[in-house]
Order: sequence, then C-alpha cells, then structure tokens
Amino acid sequence: MLTLAYDGTDFAGWQVQREQRTVQGVLEAGLARMLDRRVRVRAAGRTDSGVHAIGQVANFTAPVTIPAERWAVAINSYLPPDVRVLAARPAAAQFDARRSALARGYRYQLLVGGVGLPHLRRYCYHVRHRPDLRRLNRSAAYLVGEHDFTVFAAAGDASLSKVRRVISAVFYPSPPYLVFRIVATSFLWKMVRSIVGTLLELAAMDAPAADVRRLIAGRRRAEVGQTAPARGLFLERVWYPPLSES
Amino acid sequence: MLTLAYDGTDFAGWQVQREQRTVQGVLEAGLARMLDRRVRVRAAGRTDSGVHAIGQVANFTAPVTIPAERWAVAINSYLPPDVRVLAARPAAAQFDARRSALARGYRYQLLVGGVGLPHLRRYCYHVRHRPDLRRLNRSAAYLVGEHDFTVFAAAGDASLSKVRRVISAVFYPSPPYLVFRIVATSFLWKMVRSIVGTLLELAAMDAPAADVRRLIAGRRRAEVGQTAPARGLFLERVWYPPLSES
Repeated sequence: MLTLAYDGTDFAGWQVQREQRTVQGVLEAGLARMLDRRVRVRAAGRTDSGVHAIGQVANFTAPVTIPAERWAVAINSYLPPDVRVLAARPAAAQFDARRSALARGYRYQLLVGGVGLPHLRRYCYHVRHRPDLRRLNRSAAYLVGEHDFTVFAAAGDASLSKVRRVISAVFYPSPPYLVFRIVATSFLWKMVRSIVGTLLELAAMDAPAADVRRLIAGRRRAEVGQTAPARGLFLERVWYPPLSES
Repeated sequence: MLTLAYDGTDFAGWQVQREQRTVQGVLEAGLARMLDRRVRVRAAGRTDSGVHAIGQVANFTAPVTIPAERWAVAINSYLPPDVRVLAARPAAAQFDARRSALARGYRYQLLVGGVGLPHLRRYCYHVRHRPDLRRLNRSAAYLVGEHDFTVFAAAGDASLSKVRRVISAVFYPSPPYLVFRIVATSFLWKMVRSIVGTLLELAAMDAPAADVRRLIAGRRRAEVGQTAPARGLFLERVWYPPLSES
C-alpha cells in the first residue's frame, strides 16, 4: 500500500483516461518501468481533475523484491515531480485501498480578502469577502451524521445510495488559509466542493444555519450554491481498520 | 507606487530581457495597454529568475485619471494570474522605488525532512535532514551589522562596494516551512541564496557558528556553500522613508 501526495494542477484527475495525463496513469507507467510488468493500481479516492492529495492511499499486487523501507525512494525516481510516494508498506492479502477504507478526510483551502497572492493561487479558492467563521461552523454542524446527501451530489454521481455518514465538518483558520476540514465514510461526486460553495453562499446571504438541514431534506439540486473550484481541495487522509498491513 | 506579488516560477526574473518572459516586461505591457502609452517601471529589487515576491515595490511616471483606490483592480485585469498588484498609491515626485528604499526583507522557505509535498515544491527548498535551529541562528547572528559581504556575492555582481548592513537575520519555524528571514539595506547578487546554502552546510558539518565571521573576513568565494535554489526565495517587504507617498 502506498501513501501518495500530488499536485493536481496538471492532472485530469486520478483515474486513467485515454489521451489524458492522470495520476493513476503516471503511477502505473512508473511502476511498469520499475517492475518491468504491467500493474493495476487502486486508490481510496478517485479525485477529480485539479484536486490535490497529501494522503491518498493506493494499492497494487506485484512481486516486489526490494525491502519496503527503500520502496518510496525507488518508485519516486520513476515519477514526475508533481507526484510523490510518501510511504510504502506491504498490505494484507485482502486489502483494497477503496473498499477497505473506513473514512476519508478532505481539506478545502480558502484565501480570504484582499488580492490573492500569486504563489498561493493553485492551491486555494480566493474569496473577496470574509465570511463569519462562527456562522460557517454553525452551518457545517448540520452536515454531521447520517444523511441523504443527494442535494450535494453532482449530476453524474452513479452511486445507488446517496446516504453518507459525515463524522466531522469544521472551518478553522490555518494562516494564510481558512480551512474547511470534513471527514466522512465516503463522499458523493463533487460533494465537498458543493458543500463549500453552498456554505459560503449561505454565509454571504446571512441565511440561518438551519437552512443546511432544509437543503439536505429538500434534495433539490437547484437550491444549492455553486460548486467551489477544484484547486482548493486536498484529499488529506484515509483511515483503515487495524491489520490492513501485512 | 505599486506593491506587487508574483509567482517567479515562470519568469526569467524581474528585469526586461529580449525574448524572455519577465515581470517587468509583463507589467510594462499591461500598463501600456491600460494607459495606451509606453511606461518604464522601476523596482526596489531586481529579483532573479525563479524568485518570488509578496511585497515588491515599483514605480512609474504617467498621467493617471482613475482614482488610486480603483487602480489595483484595474491594472490586474491587464496582468496574467502569476502577477498581482496588491496596492497602488500616488508617490512623491522624487520617489524612486530602487534608490529611495531604506531596506529590503527577504524570506527563504525550507521544507525539512521526509518526502517533499508536491504542492509545495515550487515555493521551497526541500532538505532531507533537519538542521539544528539554534545552531542556524547562532550562525545567522554573525551576519548582522555592517560587513564586506564579498564572500556571498555571485561572480557577476557589479556593485562597487560589497559592504552592506544586515539589520536582522533569523530562522524560525512557520509550518509547513522553516523560514529564514533577512533584512538589510540592500543585497549583493544572489547573496541571500548563498547565505542560506552556506548556513545549511555549516550546520550539517557541525561547524562552529563563528565560522561565518571567518568566512566573511576571508572573502574567499570558494569557501562558501552551494547557492540555494531560487524557488525558496521571496522578496517580502521594502521599507521607505515617511513622505514617500504624495
């Protein structure tokens, strides 16, 4: 199992697509060169085009001869600088980065006020007006728990059930950013970005925090805010049960 | 006078050069389109290729009809996203961003240990081993004061006197970075990057802090460390006397 970080700016997302530069494609190409065989990689989260990761987890099956502790350094020499393997460990036989995951944590970086600093622009969403932090957190609190999140799913979301359990959702200052951190069992397509866009709009309109509950219950996609841009979003961490490592 | 920020990654430095994309070139082209006349811009610091800025100051002379407070927004619409005007104010008649400056402050961002995170790679220098912070600061303290800094000047430095006054020089943790901040009346060519490379090497060798004094006194360029890469360096702030604004 690999823990991965990448700068999503120049990738058409995680998943292999014909004629597109994707993280999975680059990783599988690097592994193929290193191991001299074709390898299929599975990831915990199939991040969208432009979304970054600092704690993506992926796994594959292949005979590996070099010791695990030298693995990250070895594979990184076959990868471009916008993808790095942070750690590599042998996984249990049944381990599947996607299906074994208990929860995923995302962070969304906002830059508030003034003119956006150019060296931060690829990794945040710049909002001109400072939202009220307490108001944002009162709204975010309504996300926590098990809900049908249809209203925050992008049109193409193919999952049968739209019910997800949100474990925590909080905004906090982390200079130079205002960060939104959300942990859930799993997420619907573009759910985090839809939530961020909506909570920002509700805060800008001085709407009551309970409007989030009303929106979730109503399940009318037309009522939510604009989806926030991909460049502010990072897959931060994935949790697995004990004994996932072999 | 303009306060400017830029991501230096895709620029061949500040100064106009034939066939190269430079910050001055992009800024003068934007001003020419906005004002419909050719304008020459002067900056406090002629940053090198790849060096960033969050507080560069520049000035120019031209008849400007829109009010100063709308100026930054107006000019930004003529600039690419990797250059932003943060503020614009009318300057006193004699103001010259370069000659009027009392002091310049630079920051150098180091990322220490582990594997470098891809989304930080353009804006820091990744060093594998953690240097001793107190040792770095004991060395840095020897830079403060008026010295002949010949030893830290790149070969092409054209200034007549190599004497500069360093006002402060300190390393401090600023997560995720270890930051070196240095303020001086002005700097020799590549001086900050040469200092950073040298202090890191001295720390790695467990050399006594007073070696910095010995190096400065010796003025033998061959004795200093490698120049640290441009991508970690930011022109942070420029100080001017009161009454620089009109």
